[in-house]
Amino acid sequence: MTTGPPLRYTIGTMDDVPFALPEFAPGSVWLIGAGPGDPGLLTLLALHAIRSADAVIYDALVDPRIVQAAKPGAEIVFAGKRGGRPSQRQPDITAVAIALAKAGKRVARLKGGDPFVFGRGGEEAQAFVAAGIPFRVVPGITAGIGGLAYAGIPLTHRGAAGTIAFVTGQQAAAEPGAGAAVDWPALAAACEVLVVYMPLGRLPAIVKALIAAGRAPDEPAALVAKATTPQQLVIETTLAGAEEAASTAGIAAPALFVVGPVVKLRRTLAWYEKTGPKDQETSR
Amino acid sequence: MTTGPPLRYTIGTMDDVPFALPEFAPGSVWLIGAGPGDPGLLTLLALHAIRSADAVIYDALVDPRIVQAAKPGAEIVFAGKRGGRPSQRQPDITAVAIALAKAGKRVARLKGGDPFVFGRGGEEAQAFVAAGIPFRVVPGITAGIGGLAYAGIPLTHRGAAGTIAFVTGQQAAAEPGAGAAVDWPALAAACEVLVVYMPLGRLPAIVKALIAAGRAPDEPAALVAKATTPQQLVIETTLAGAEEAASTAGIAAPALFVVGPVVKLRRTLAWYEKTGPKDQETSR
Repeated sequence: MTTGPPLRYTIGTMDDVPFALPEFAPGSVWLIGAGPGDPGLLTLLALHAIRSADAVIYDALVDPRIVQAAKPGAEIVFAGKRGGRPSQRQPDITAVAIALAKAGKRVARLKGGDPFVFGRGGEEAQAFVAAGIPFRVVPGITAGIGGLAYAGIPLTHRGAAGTIAFVTGQQAAAEPGAGAAVDWPALAAACEVLVVYMPLGRLPAIVKALIAAGRAPDEPAALVAKATTPQQLVIETTLAGAEEAASTAGIAAPALFVVGPVVKLRRTLAWYEKTGPKDQETSR
Repeated sequence: MTTGPPLRYTIGTMDDVPFALPEFAPGSVWLIGAGPGDPGLLTLLALHAIRSADAVIYDALVDPRIVQAAKPGAEIVFAGKRGGRPSQRQPDITAVAIALAKAGKRVARLKGGDPFVFGRGGEEAQAFVAAGIPFRVVPGITAGIGGLAYAGIPLTHRGAAGTIAFVTGQQAAAEPGAGAAVDWPALAAACEVLVVYMPLGRLPAIVKALIAAGRAPDEPAALVAKATTPQQLVIETTLAGAEEAASTAGIAAPALFVVGPVVKLRRTLAWYEKTGPKDQETSR
């Protein structure tokens, strides 16, 4: 585990970005992926939107320093659960975004990762359509790709079948309208590389299902917590050893679980622990 | 199909980005995802790297205007096949990057999308390690996520199982060291949403395999070409109708093929055709 200093930041203008960016129209919502953590992984469109917004609504996994790029006087709304603070329910947050847009504000709705990958962005977008609010989607780097890149794990590699699955460990089967459970046996057979978002609550069950479906107990696996941040923690383990490894290392959310031969590539490709936090510390 | 004007761009400095960014050290290579097309989807790290680089090596799917953000005097190397120009072989390009880094240059190696998602970035990174060249990976927005967001298709949605597969239609089974073929029947059973990169060469075989494995011939499907650019073309079709639809519409690479119920959401969520190119046209 490496721990670096907090990132420094300064707030300037967007006058010098090298491309024309679309106007953020008053009365509209931009549904924005803030990426997995490292503010350097923000897109130009995301930064443009945060700086232009009259209101910024952000989830728990968005670094508060990103939000501080908002212009003076912008309304800042925290929408996610963190520590002892109460969780906002999704319809409430969406209603807030709609009310702000109806009041003529430019509303930047910031989500961790990508809004359409386990981010419930589709539901919010449907609500904006129903309310007659124009919206734009700004994709973000999803943790299952960007976070694993910072862990030195390429999702695809020569010699592999090139089939990747993204699944969520948090199944909402108890909620009305929720979908079918993940078919772990079929998934185990189909996809050489499995990336599980939010795995911690169901890790023993996931491991058991994958081994029962024929994945080797000693298949390479890794747990990655707080990916792309100075607190990034990567534990290399095996499928069968994952639960104990997570417990021993004290892996906490947000985390990813990745299973597949590509995990072994990390032994030579783990660049971030060597250069990442140090680079941030010594940055211009 | 919507066709907008070319994006305007101006070139400025990076003095005012709001976060400290790591130094691009001379003699190192940054392996950078340039995203699916829209320059606004570049990350801050990517733009920083392009502007700081002494040499920029870029693939065919990277918009040349992105490369023009390089500083005056930077060496620009085109690495990909486009039109009638000869293709560079992967080892040659990697050797060029290594030679430039050994000569003390800051080398920005730009790939379309994300370097570790069907981008062969892992192989290049291994070559850098073998040559003793320090490197950093800058993840990019992959077309399978960002491109589909611009098509108004959320990959995950309430009521779905939340299992997504990314596969490539271009199997390299004839190449030495290449991996096993995609197991389409297992994939069809396991993953509600399938995103096929580079599908065009094998579209009939893919469709046939998925239907044979039990996917409904009338299941919603879409073809997306030139995603996130003003030339973006999205064809809504069905699994069984995909081949004819691609042919009728003249779908050309780069393209994606997506299969699953989430495709239907596009009917209300297709925001880009309404706002994207127009926004770009009227931007500051």
